[in-house]
Amino acid sequence: MDVRLEREALNGYLDDVFPQIRGRVRAIDVAPGVVRAEYLAAEGDLRPGGTVSGPAMFMLADCAFYMVVLSALGREALAVTTNCSINFLRKPAPGRLEAEARILKLGKTLCVGDVLIRSAGVAGPVAQASLTYSIPPRRSDMG
Amino acid sequence: MDVRLEREALNGYLDDVFPQIRGRVRAIDVAPGVVRAEYLAAEGDLRPGGTVSGPAMFMLADCAFYMVVLSALGREALAVTTNCSINFLRKPAPGRLEAEARILKLGKTLCVGDVLIRSAGVAGPVAQASLTYSIPPRRSDMG
Amino acid sequence: MDVRLEREALNGYLDDVFPQIRGRVRAIDVAPGVVRAEYLAAEGDLRPGGTVSGPAMFMLADCAFYMVVLSALGREALAVTTNCSINFLRKPAPGRLEAEARILKLGKTLCVGDVLIRSAGVAGPVAQASLTYSIPPRRSDMG
Amino acid sequence: MDVRLEREALNGYLDDVFPQIRGRVRAIDVAPGVVRAEYLAAEGDLRPGGTVSGPAMFMLADCAFYMVVLSALGREALAVTTNCSINFLRKPAPGRLEAEARILKLGKTLCVGDVLIRSAGVAGPVAQASLTYSIPPRRSDMG
Repeated sequence: MDVRLEREALNGYLDDVFPQIRGRVRAIDVAPGVVRAEYLAAEGDLRPGGTVSGPAMFMLADCAFYMVVLSALGREALAVTTNCSINFLRKPAPGRLEAEARILKLGKTLCVGDVLIRSAGVAGPVAQASLTYSIPPRRSDMG
Repeated sequence: MDVRLEREALNGYLDDVFPQIRGRVRAIDVAPGVVRAEYLAAEGDLRPGGTVSGPAMFMLADCAFYMVVLSALGREALAVTTNCSINFLRKPAPGRLEAEARILKLGKTLCVGDVLIRSAGVAGPVAQASLTYSIPPRRSDMG
Repeated sequence: MDVRLEREALNGYLDDVFPQIRGRVRAIDVAPGVVRAEYLAAEGDLRPGGTVSGPAMFMLADCAFYMVVLSALGREALAVTTNCSINFLRKPAPGRLEAEARILKLGKTLCVGDVLIRSAGVAGPVAQASLTYSIPPRRSDMG
Repeated sequence: MDVRLEREALNGYLDDVFPQIRGRVRAIDVAPGVVRAEYLAAEGDLRPGGTVSGPAMFMLADCAFYMVVLSALGREALAVTTNCSINFLRKPAPGRLEAEARILKLGKTLCVGDVLIRSAGVAGPVAQASLTYSIPPRRSDMG
């Protein structure tokens, strides 16, 4: 697996296509088939008690996996999430989360992998997710 | 299974504990073990092209299932999501979504069920989710 | 969705391709997008206490969903399981199980659906599964 | 996390409680929170073409995770599978499979983790599974 989109290009591309999450999710490290991303919770992502909400952790898992798919396929990829199974393991602390997304299989039509989310100051992961993305044929492949 | 929390009480309770989603997710029908809820997408939930985002559909599935758990257990329930497996089936239209959440098993420590999400104007469901909630012992049960 | 393979043809086809399960899993009803199948536990499927094992219930869910995919696509389908998320809800009784498999989305490359398994004499379902099958292009489609 | 049941004790215990799989699944390495297990396919586990069937890989994932739960909780554990989400990634070769099961969270009532299955001669994992086990209170805890 090659890296076709490096960290800065990845972050720039995401800001363009998802302006809603600008500045909240950033790739911090990109290697073949693995992306580490960080997340800074916005006000609306917090639950009573200051913990990060389930939907916000889902968003982080999905976004980190999208990054690793993009890093492997390049910018034109039209990949979309078809399945996500997420386990919530521990209550995250209010601050920064870090996600490590890994590709387990990059096929012609499907990409499958997993994501582990950690929270600063919490021992053990706060969430684990497995994701499947569908990869539609590129226009250029279709003649 | 009894209904311990009727529709209006359910909506009022959710507004209190999750002010972020006030007016966006509402129970429209509550029966034993089944809740139908509707969702009106906010600006930030939309993806390019106007479709509702994956995290927003996850939030709706989780919220609809939380409602059916509350409706069965009553207001003091401290149930938390431990697992959600969600399949994205079709691109939803920008407008209103409707979710039907159903309890398949209400045990002492776990509640398991599923949610089907439909989008006005789209034939066939747009998402299907299976969820597990953990039910901690009530304070009153612990002496 | 049409029924391209009726009950008897479906059972005959499965006996040919999976002789190991001959006589253990049978379609009992086939309608568009829905197949009901029954399962008679073999000795090796039972756990101490006479209950049906998890792997045997997984096999039934997978097999019932394969049947409904075949019923919709016809005999030449080369569909393979890519994901199964299964919830074990209640202890099944030793006897006959019945599975209802339903297609939620039949796309060009993926078929997604769910299965509910019931056990004679047990109130409420004993297992629920969501499955995704990948549908490779047919030879005839590839020229 | 301690190891409360070492490799030989683990294999002996499994042979006692699951005589059906005797000699087919064996722990080969036990460390805190991680068990590696091997699997030798029996005739009935093979699909046309000699590949290992989905239910057999499910059984291996479930069994390897049961081993790591037992290794952490000790022999009296009554843990039962409540959820398994399994992704089938590549066609395994007919021979030996190896599974690595890991605990991500060991709580009072739930244990969550994942399993990666590899096949000799196949580059990349053949299956990935996430599992949740429910841990009933021990008799001794109940007075």
